[in-house]
Amino acid sequence: MSHASRFIDACWGKPHDAIPVWFMRQAGRYQAGYRQLREQYSFLEMAHSEDVITEVTCRPVEELGVDAAILFSDIMIPLGPMGIDFDIQEHKGPVIAQPIRSAKDLARLHPLRPEEDLPEVFSSIERICARIDPIPLIGFAGAPFTLASYIIEGGPSKQYENTKKMMWEQPALWHDLMMRLAEGIVEHLSAQIRHGVQAVQIFDSWIGTLSVNDYATFVLPVMQYIFAQLEKFQVPTIYFGTGTAALLPLMKQAGASVLGIDWRVPLSQVRRQLGKDITLQGNLDPVALLSSWEVIADQATHILTMMAHDSRYIFNLGHGVPPAANADDLKRLVQLVHEYPYQANEL
Amino acid sequence: MSHASRFIDACWGKPHDAIPVWFMRQAGRYQAGYRQLREQYSFLEMAHSEDVITEVTCRPVEELGVDAAILFSDIMIPLGPMGIDFDIQEHKGPVIAQPIRSAKDLARLHPLRPEEDLPEVFSSIERICARIDPIPLIGFAGAPFTLASYIIEGGPSKQYENTKKMMWEQPALWHDLMMRLAEGIVEHLSAQIRHGVQAVQIFDSWIGTLSVNDYATFVLPVMQYIFAQLEKFQVPTIYFGTGTAALLPLMKQAGASVLGIDWRVPLSQVRRQLGKDITLQGNLDPVALLSSWEVIADQATHILTMMAHDSRYIFNLGHGVPPAANADDLKRLVQLVHEYPYQANEL
Repeated sequence: MSHASRFIDACWGKPHDAIPVWFMRQAGRYQAGYRQLREQYSFLEMAHSEDVITEVTCRPVEELGVDAAILFSDIMIPLGPMGIDFDIQEHKGPVIAQPIRSAKDLARLHPLRPEEDLPEVFSSIERICARIDPIPLIGFAGAPFTLASYIIEGGPSKQYENTKKMMWEQPALWHDLMMRLAEGIVEHLSAQIRHGVQAVQIFDSWIGTLSVNDYATFVLPVMQYIFAQLEKFQVPTIYFGTGTAALLPLMKQAGASVLGIDWRVPLSQVRRQLGKDITLQGNLDPVALLSSWEVIADQATHILTMMAHDSRYIFNLGHGVPPAANADDLKRLVQLVHEYPYQANEL
Repeated sequence: MSHASRFIDACWGKPHDAIPVWFMRQAGRYQAGYRQLREQYSFLEMAHSEDVITEVTCRPVEELGVDAAILFSDIMIPLGPMGIDFDIQEHKGPVIAQPIRSAKDLARLHPLRPEEDLPEVFSSIERICARIDPIPLIGFAGAPFTLASYIIEGGPSKQYENTKKMMWEQPALWHDLMMRLAEGIVEHLSAQIRHGVQAVQIFDSWIGTLSVNDYATFVLPVMQYIFAQLEKFQVPTIYFGTGTAALLPLMKQAGASVLGIDWRVPLSQVRRQLGKDITLQGNLDPVALLSSWEVIADQATHILTMMAHDSRYIFNLGHGVPPAANADDLKRLVQLVHEYPYQANEL
């Protein structure tokens, strides 16, 4: 079994030699090299530079030994060429000058032409794939709800009050916005796949604020549309959110091959609840990375023990690597996962 | 069936004539009268004034027609006399000058002597009970985890990194802190009951950040201790948290007579999962109160339809009333709940 295929094989539930591992935000502030780059460039400058995207994406593979790279970018990046002006502010996140809250605002949104609008992203993908081969590259996009929450609220939010207000009071406008975002996401991910990414992850980080009923009514259909559109490429698709304990059965119905699970729910319980026909990814509390190695190893081992016989599991955190994490601990964690005595049963 | 007993009867699963309703933070900024008081006094001045506590606690009963009052106070209030200096800042919340992170810090914490330390709270309770009789008054306290998160982090937190670090790296210190807080909570609630409150709610608002495993190890035993200590009073006990979808079966084991449920999980599913021997409270997304009356009524009716035959349900929000809520909508909502055709089956 080739090392290179562990991640992809686990996505499909095919036999593989060890539990694969990568980390959300494995290219980030916890790395000295990344911090140096951030002193020279703004985040957006970095995310639009072919050299930086390539370098920053490849380093974690080379430094940590993870089983997949994930494109260095941001979920907001395709929104710029779609007509949304935004900035990404340190310690705050995306800030949108003119939030979208009416049909008139929505008219500002136009379709994404990925290769014309973001050529540096796709040339980077080609360079990264050549450099890290045979390790796969994961492409990604934000999910419509999470993107909508930023562009309606104007930035990060605690309660998502304007987002929910539009959803509940103007369902036709909401659906229009969700479908325009969905088309952009499908175009963006399709182009990433055409240029070489071997899997794609859709980040719905803030979806956990919705009730089961609202998710079923206002979000699930558009997620099903997106994953159905991507099916023809036959690459693994990953659907990730946090605070999703109540939503997981519906999120499975969205149709991705892999579900990203945060740290709150035990994976053994999720496996029982969702059945065997889907790969699970994640589950280590990212905050554990701010504790001692003993704490990290103990919590990782607790998870690995639950999944030691599961052929559809990918080790990851429940959310992104915190900026204050220790790079050496991440490297040891990759080793710990790879060395864990793994023997999959037939699922 | 007397109107006055609806809330208490629903807590015990006894027959009652209509679904009872009250709102977390029903005394708050959404009220013009409350905003006027806040222009004259700081929050802490209000929470230590017998006149203000009495007035602010009683008004929602008189203005909205809810089935219970809840003491106007804050979960931080008993921590002052226990040795924790704090302030409550507008738009931010509690700020603790010297966070507790070591055994030396913990030595600052001393036992609460409720009647000596907070006489204004207990004299207010007596005045309130006389004024609103036969409507019951709910007393409350913060849960040890949520209190600990403030005093360890030094204020509100997103990731609770110092809290989790102490929990994981110094479990003996963590247990010591939790038990000291638990003793204070038991003393405070016992005194509230002795002075007349007819039910108590324990707010564990931020518990949803913990994994099931961490909750079982580091929190559940202390919650079981607290509810066991309160059992002798034979008053209903309510245990509330948000983001608790994964934790609810364990939270039930804590031993309260009522569980507060946020808006994320459908109550019909919670009822199936938890069985019939516990009362459920809550479930309307508080953000709905910032939408039109049609949206509020629609969502409330969706919940009421699920619970129309359930003798152990109390209508409430999934968290506190938002400051921008409309007082008239809250009043209409109380009417809507009371007028809903309710006919309990034997549970």
